Amino acid sequence: MDTIILSIDDIRAIVQQVGLNELMDDLISRLTIAFQEYDEENTTIPVRDGFNYHEPHIGLIEWMPVMETGKAATIKIVGYHPTNPALRKLPTILSTISAYDTSSGHLIGLADATFLTALRTGAASAVASKLMASPDSQTVGLIGCGAQAVTQLHALTREFNIHSALAYDIDASVTNHFADRVDFLDVDVQATDLKTLVRAADIIVTATSVGIGHGPVFSDEETKPWLHINAVGADFPGKVEIPAAFLKKSFVCPDFLEQALKEGECQQLATGDIGPELVTVVQHAEQYTFVQQQLSVFDSTGWALEDQVALNMMLDYAEDLGLGKLVQLESISEDPHNPYHFVKAKTEAHQLTSADVIIESP
Amino acid sequence: MDTIILSIDDIRAIVQQVGLNELMDDLISRLTIAFQEYDEENTTIPVRDGFNYHEPHIGLIEWMPVMETGKAATIKIVGYHPTNPALRKLPTILSTISAYDTSSGHLIGLADATFLTALRTGAASAVASKLMASPDSQTVGLIGCGAQAVTQLHALTREFNIHSALAYDIDASVTNHFADRVDFLDVDVQATDLKTLVRAADIIVTATSVGIGHGPVFSDEETKPWLHINAVGADFPGKVEIPAAFLKKSFVCPDFLEQALKEGECQQLATGDIGPELVTVVQHAEQYTFVQQQLSVFDSTGWALEDQVALNMMLDYAEDLGLGKLVQLESISEDPHNPYHFVKAKTEAHQLTSADVIIESP
Repeated sequence: MDTIILSIDDIRAIVQQVGLNELMDDLISRLTIAFQEYDEENTTIPVRDGFNYHEPHIGLIEWMPVMETGKAATIKIVGYHPTNPALRKLPTILSTISAYDTSSGHLIGLADATFLTALRTGAASAVASKLMASPDSQTVGLIGCGAQAVTQLHALTREFNIHSALAYDIDASVTNHFADRVDFLDVDVQATDLKTLVRAADIIVTATSVGIGHGPVFSDEETKPWLHINAVGADFPGKVEIPAAFLKKSFVCPDFLEQALKEGECQQLATGDIGPELVTVVQHAEQYTFVQQQLSVFDSTGWALEDQVALNMMLDYAEDLGLGKLVQLESISEDPHNPYHFVKAKTEAHQLTSADVIIESP
Repeated sequence: MDTIILSIDDIRAIVQQVGLNELMDDLISRLTIAFQEYDEENTTIPVRDGFNYHEPHIGLIEWMPVMETGKAATIKIVGYHPTNPALRKLPTILSTISAYDTSSGHLIGLADATFLTALRTGAASAVASKLMASPDSQTVGLIGCGAQAVTQLHALTREFNIHSALAYDIDASVTNHFADRVDFLDVDVQATDLKTLVRAADIIVTATSVGIGHGPVFSDEETKPWLHINAVGADFPGKVEIPAAFLKKSFVCPDFLEQALKEGECQQLATGDIGPELVTVVQHAEQYTFVQQQLSVFDSTGWALEDQVALNMMLDYAEDLGLGKLVQLESISEDPHNPYHFVKAKTEAHQLTSADVIIESP
């Protein structure tokens, strides 16, 4: 009974063979369908939980489980370590994801989710923006120009005719290199100050590592009247990016209300000031077209359903392309009542040897 | 940055090279030290959580996290599917375990925990029995003769001079094959009825898949006055194995009080009727020698610290023996701010080809 493992080489091969644009388009499409078909009777998604700590540096390790009843449970383990880029040359977010068969408990597959988390967070913003941003949006403002900003801008270019990106990061060297990182897109990227960015953008993405209690990351000033914001960074109690005053005059749509109230922008709002969840807007899109003409915020804390959809997409491609490594991980044998039988099993199949200590040691 | 994966082949090789007795002895010793050194200021262990369901059959998938502050987080994912042996020829408990570096979030290693769960549950019972059972114990009664019973009996033989095992399982074929499964031990195994077993045993192990609301699994009848019970099976709200009347006259020691109150034998008791946790008894052993002369119950729900110790032991052996497979799982590159750079990275290192779609696709 094998487990499929998708390593960096498999994911690289999938991206190279499928194409990055095609992959993003497929994920946006799969997410849209998953949101349309989502039914809380069949899918169980607890609010994520985890460890947070200040040693050796500030960080989080969280588990994000989701179960499709009668089929599989998917659990993403995600680390958030904002000192990673500077101290370890590693992404802030490192993650892996695994799927379990709920008939037996068998580990079906394990894959990197560092790339997948960035991809699905971008795709989710594209789904939200398509419903809530002005269809004529051309200018994206990026506040925070790290790894998440790359996939956010990429995903938006797949749904909008984006000509221009205005980039701002608290670390000027990150801002300056952003244009190179997105040079595969046909977008003019300009580093700018926050005020210019906020005033000129049709869509803003906030994806920062702002510290707890140090937000918001911009001031509530003059904006376009149809500005839509994808607020991606808030993922911890006390961490927020958007000014409360801006939220209060906006249509605020969380991905997962219960979680957004705990660690998203919704922390700053009373329940009555919060709009429906993204799945509701997707499922009743015709009722929410008015949002495209007004201020709106997608409060994206990260929803385990998105991870499940992303993993399943990669497993589908791996199967089609014959990628991934099969490993027999679980120590099982023909005798389910004997936890030691697997040790004998293989040697018996070959030939008993003196190394077969299980029977012979005193 | 590699992840080490211990598959069934690696675990088999470790057992064959180290020896099963030596492995059990090492784990008992490591657990004892870990309990002696345990300090809740440095180690965080939340009560496990999970999905439970009745489709396609009754089952559970749970996550059991533990974090040593400043070092690593270990998360065991454990499935409990009592229909596995009959329907799928698989163990009731299937499990995997992984460790994460809390400085970066990197997945350090992944290993099977099906064997490890059985091994550490046995080892924990040995630690508890050494403190609470009569040192002269010779007869073990096993109620439930599945996979867990094998390691329970094995572990007890490492700490006591066990001559005889009395075996009872609700499935007679499981009872009948039990002697074969433990024929590597120098123990006389007799199938018997429950009443004889309860009366004759110095130590009893309950490790059943009794249904919720269907316990206890034996009646409170005459026993030896020093009987010690390792109650291993209770792992879910409503599932219990030991008669409440027996618990009330016994010294009851849970592995993890908060969890035992939720899903262990302690569900049947008021807090005042419950003794100290196992770590307390280990850390103050001299105060608890009186327990060896009286009735006692180790309420073993499974503690994540035991899993962490077991995984670290296997990782140590793998390193010593040069076992395990190194996989680069996480999709990272030289540029931590670019989630797509890993796709280019490899091709650039070799040579750019037309397959390098990331830069070229429209």
